[in-house]
Amino acid sequence: MQIYLAGPEVFLPDAEDVANAKRAICARHGATGVFPTDPVHCPEADASPEGWLAIYLRNEAHIRRADALIANLTPFRGPSADAGTVYELGFMRALGRPVAGYANTRTPFTERTRSFLGPSARRRPDGGWEDGEGLHLESFGLHDNLMIDGGLRAAGGPLVTREVAEADRWRDLTAFEAALRALLKSA
Amino acid sequence: MQIYLAGPEVFLPDAEDVANAKRAICARHGATGVFPTDPVHCPEADASPEGWLAIYLRNEAHIRRADALIANLTPFRGPSADAGTVYELGFMRALGRPVAGYANTRTPFTERTRSFLGPSARRRPDGGWEDGEGLHLESFGLHDNLMIDGGLRAAGGPLVTREVAEADRWRDLTAFEAALRALLKSA
Repeated sequence: MQIYLAGPEVFLPDAEDVANAKRAICARHGATGVFPTDPVHCPEADASPEGWLAIYLRNEAHIRRADALIANLTPFRGPSADAGTVYELGFMRALGRPVAGYANTRTPFTERTRSFLGPSARRRPDGGWEDGEGLHLESFGLHDNLMIDGGLRAAGGPLVTREVAEADRWRDLTAFEAALRALLKSA
Repeated sequence: MQIYLAGPEVFLPDAEDVANAKRAICARHGATGVFPTDPVHCPEADASPEGWLAIYLRNEAHIRRADALIANLTPFRGPSADAGTVYELGFMRALGRPVAGYANTRTPFTERTRSFLGPSARRRPDGGWEDGEGLHLESFGLHDNLMIDGGLRAAGGPLVTREVAEADRWRDLTAFEAALRALLKSA
């Protein structure tokens, strides 16, 4: 089974080391991990004069060929997961193939959003929360925006969250491995 | 043409007013705007004991029935667009139907991320930028994460950005109408 490894670790200075560690875990479980930067046959990308668009087209080609996707949903520069990872999760869900997610925090989305907003977050008379401009805060007790949790749930895919020290959160792969194991069991 | 109206305006206290304004603009151009909270036939959602999952399933049902999608990509609680909107954009791109995006800011993604990070953002010797943990900042001169700009470009869809006063950015629909017009011309 080819599993696309979506996540913001592509931005790490040691991205290739983390990719190798994820690939090794996949191999131990009899699967093949596909990292976004892996080479892939994609003539449209080869023909693109724009480097960023070639990266997009190769990522899309990888996802279209993969049998499943595991998304690193550890919050990235804000209360939610990395935008590229979220896009890819939605993409794979629409293809109807198995998806899984993991995050190296157990703090729920509402609490993360409240600490992101700071004192501008305020209570509504109904007990809910809103930001300084009056926009509502989701408060379903979920890990992230309901489209993310919902896509995983609708697909029958696992979402593993685990508390990890902040300094280790981009490289600790315990929750990744648990998500992989659950994905392989259910897929 | 049924157009799904993805965006964080579902969180506004006057969401229904903004929905009506978007629907009216669509109608003027001969299209039908579909707001996430519109009713939709979805037996799985009706049967769901969990309210949040019912919302997810109805949004998914709307997107699956729609002919196209316009995403409000105005940055939301961080440098990137609303996570739910990004998920839906990726979903519709995978379905292979026309997509469009708009944002009520013209500040590029790299600059938004740098001001989000503040003094922790630092230059790399190669001239690029990284955050306080060494994770790279995309610097392609794009509007948002390259998966977002790339999905629109790969689909041949417009991405309209326009500078709007901060206080008006959730309700000004000039860029929305321009994206709609371009979508209808190209689709």
